[in-house]
Amino acid sequence: MFHEESIHAVPHHHGGVYGRLRTAYYCNVQAHDYYPDDYSKSRRSALGAVKELPLADVYRLLEPGPVVLLTTCHKGRANVMTMSWHTMVEFTPPLVACVVSRADYSFAALRATRECVIAVPAAELALKVVKIGNCSGREVDKFETAGSTPLPSECIASPLIAECFANLECRVVETRLVNKYDLFVLEVLKAWRDPLQRNPKTIHHRGNGIFVVDGETIRLKSRMP
Amino acid sequence: MFHEESIHAVPHHHGGVYGRLRTAYYCNVQAHDYYPDDYSKSRRSALGAVKELPLADVYRLLEPGPVVLLTTCHKGRANVMTMSWHTMVEFTPPLVACVVSRADYSFAALRATRECVIAVPAAELALKVVKIGNCSGREVDKFETAGSTPLPSECIASPLIAECFANLECRVVETRLVNKYDLFVLEVLKAWRDPLQRNPKTIHHRGNGIFVVDGETIRLKSRMP
Repeated sequence: MFHEESIHAVPHHHGGVYGRLRTAYYCNVQAHDYYPDDYSKSRRSALGAVKELPLADVYRLLEPGPVVLLTTCHKGRANVMTMSWHTMVEFTPPLVACVVSRADYSFAALRATRECVIAVPAAELALKVVKIGNCSGREVDKFETAGSTPLPSECIASPLIAECFANLECRVVETRLVNKYDLFVLEVLKAWRDPLQRNPKTIHHRGNGIFVVDGETIRLKSRMP
Repeated sequence: MFHEESIHAVPHHHGGVYGRLRTAYYCNVQAHDYYPDDYSKSRRSALGAVKELPLADVYRLLEPGPVVLLTTCHKGRANVMTMSWHTMVEFTPPLVACVVSRADYSFAALRATRECVIAVPAAELALKVVKIGNCSGREVDKFETAGSTPLPSECIASPLIAECFANLECRVVETRLVNKYDLFVLEVLKAWRDPLQRNPKTIHHRGNGIFVVDGETIRLKSRMP
């Protein structure tokens, strides 16, 4: 699926949760471009901050409807888009339905590679999120444009985003509604959480650049999972 | 689809937006049970407060991922459930994908009648929303249990909910993913908005009775619709 020249093995100079990183499976997101001076230090610290999240907890991230980022990697080139049209479909294994419009540059990558990462940004990243939404991977390197840091995934080629508090490695498992609705069903294979971002507030898109930031949290006696 | 005996024509003693109410299409939600003393007054005031919302604006309600209520009407009996697993699929006509589990009593009604209302509650209704989620239409009349007020829809039999700030009359347009994923695609036929609820804050479910209430609104220079 990827050009041989673009496969960029990421050295294992970190321990921890990415121990089983499949380097051969990791396509070149030109990480060195994004860590010009403190490459290894940044990567180590970013990687060290990521912990595996139980798959059964994934729905707690997506069910509230946050704006997310979706990364792909196609023909050795990583890309990222913003997305608000997604919903949980199943708890375990976590299944997610999402709409990636064929007008989006990411559509072809998602359809061809059948994999992506869903990254969940906290409100502090709102400006980056909008920057990512305002340009196209057809014209620019969106990671660079938005100042986002791609990190290797464990199971797939699409990169994680270091700044996001959660990252979900996904595989497309259902395409029957792609032709008519651009709707994909994904299975989350692996989920990561940054424990240093303790109570991240997410953002929710209301259209035309209006976003609502998470406010107070309430706890009610619900029997629903 | 409905027992003849259960069709309960609602008198047109109100003018305004529900003028073209198709009484023959409206099944009995036993409205008189919910307005024991001030039936006509309550209905008039509730109806008077509802205005049609342009279909092109529907995505602004659902895209942020609020907890919603879903009403159905099957064999003359109305029911309501809570739902968080939904996403926009298309702007116009507005299409919505949602997961209604076959474990939910509403599943059979939705599959058989191919119609429902999506009602969007503000945070003040959080306790009612949880009450609706904590019981089943198999055992109780959930409108009564939660103290919610059903109102006639214009195009379908499923009732609107008077207390909700928005109500969307929907028809099922896609069932290919129902058998495997309990996922329906709906088209919004008609949308209503209560203009008296000016800046409603919605709630977002994080699992196990934890809800996040909308906080501050931010406006960024986005090119996304």
